[in-house]
Amino acid sequence: MTGWLAVAGLGPGAEALITPEVTEALATADDLVGYAPYVDRIAQRDGLRRHASDNRVELERAQFALELATAGRRVVLVSSGDPGVFAMAAAVFEALEAGPAAWRDLDIRVLPGVTAMLAAAARAGAPLGHDFCVLNLSDNLKPWSLIETRLRLAVEADFAIALYNPRSKARPEGFARALTLLQDLCRDERPVIFARAVSTGEESLRVLPLQDARPELADMRTLVIVGSSQTRLIERPAGPLVYTPRSATVSVEAP
Amino acid sequence: MTGWLAVAGLGPGAEALITPEVTEALATADDLVGYAPYVDRIAQRDGLRRHASDNRVELERAQFALELATAGRRVVLVSSGDPGVFAMAAAVFEALEAGPAAWRDLDIRVLPGVTAMLAAAARAGAPLGHDFCVLNLSDNLKPWSLIETRLRLAVEADFAIALYNPRSKARPEGFARALTLLQDLCRDERPVIFARAVSTGEESLRVLPLQDARPELADMRTLVIVGSSQTRLIERPAGPLVYTPRSATVSVEAP
Repeated sequence: MTGWLAVAGLGPGAEALITPEVTEALATADDLVGYAPYVDRIAQRDGLRRHASDNRVELERAQFALELATAGRRVVLVSSGDPGVFAMAAAVFEALEAGPAAWRDLDIRVLPGVTAMLAAAARAGAPLGHDFCVLNLSDNLKPWSLIETRLRLAVEADFAIALYNPRSKARPEGFARALTLLQDLCRDERPVIFARAVSTGEESLRVLPLQDARPELADMRTLVIVGSSQTRLIERPAGPLVYTPRSATVSVEAP
Repeated sequence: MTGWLAVAGLGPGAEALITPEVTEALATADDLVGYAPYVDRIAQRDGLRRHASDNRVELERAQFALELATAGRRVVLVSSGDPGVFAMAAAVFEALEAGPAAWRDLDIRVLPGVTAMLAAAARAGAPLGHDFCVLNLSDNLKPWSLIETRLRLAVEADFAIALYNPRSKARPEGFARALTLLQDLCRDERPVIFARAVSTGEESLRVLPLQDARPELADMRTLVIVGSSQTRLIERPAGPLVYTPRSATVSVEAP
């Protein structure tokens, strides 16, 4: 038997958002590896060994999955959303680059999924319908100054901005600073979307003008989308729709 | 019968990348609306009316889908990839905002999908594993100067850059200018990924150092990802892997 490693995205939460490709990989795997809440999303069956790990041990988890595959096991390493966006795929390749040469001969596939910003955008309307950027607000792995610089440049470029991991209990102050910075830079009432746990039973969606947005509206299960200057709000009986038009006639100044 | 409109993403091409949510919507629809090549991806069945349209008529197509739903039909409007990323969802809301008030009472859902950059990134490794931005290179709907300004700011922010619609027969020169600009700004050998028709029978993947990239490598079915300054290449017997590490210690200058 030849081992392989599939780094698979489970989508934002609902089973109806898991691709058949991922479902098929899970059906043929010997080993299931991942952060415990994601492993819990997969039904148990005969012949499947489960390896649930704690958060913040991404590199060890990636090494473990690579070792299992090297030993001939068929391994699925699960991420929420898409594994390539602030998730396990980069950790696997970091481990692979630093690891034994034999790992470079492994059969490794990344199986894409519906990442959180796409699910959040779909619920709100189409806020990512024009050019946008995507930032991880966690400063575990980068200096806060870099986050601030990127936010400034993103506003200057008039991108819509998707913010992952906005706020954790361990570091609540970062998102408050980011929000204040965005309010100061934009000085307008562009819509901000707080989309929490989209497609799960705990889903909630809030849309507010930027100047009314408050840091307490976000936690680690929230995906925040800040509109561009062009993003529009349509009022409806069933709740507002937010979209960014495809066309742009605005000109931004070159730096 | 109450009509509804689902704006659905078919993913990059393979049936195994269509979410069960979209498959279910297609199974219950009365009408299927979309650009002809995307409508062609859906098998015919009894009771499904097909409305395939030409390219570049997004707004008329959106209005037609809204009219059908208003008349009580259950309508799926299909996009490739994710409908919210440079696709039909924004066109629907543009039409809705400008259209009759009754359209605001409609049951409209956006069903997310695997957008092209996620499929392309998965094939190449994890080039979008750190902060990134996403640009539509088509200048049908925005001035070219805005595209150049955004590319400059994206490089300054040290984002990886995903480029949609890089090059059409009607306007081959834009991507050549964009590539030259990126080569001048970056002056390094960061990897560039040309991912064409990922997950279809015509899939091809090329990875080159930025200074070797040539405009002819892209067409309208190509998704281009330009790495950040931190993006790494791992050589392997089966072909290179490209990834952007999760951590960044680099500091970029504030403008």
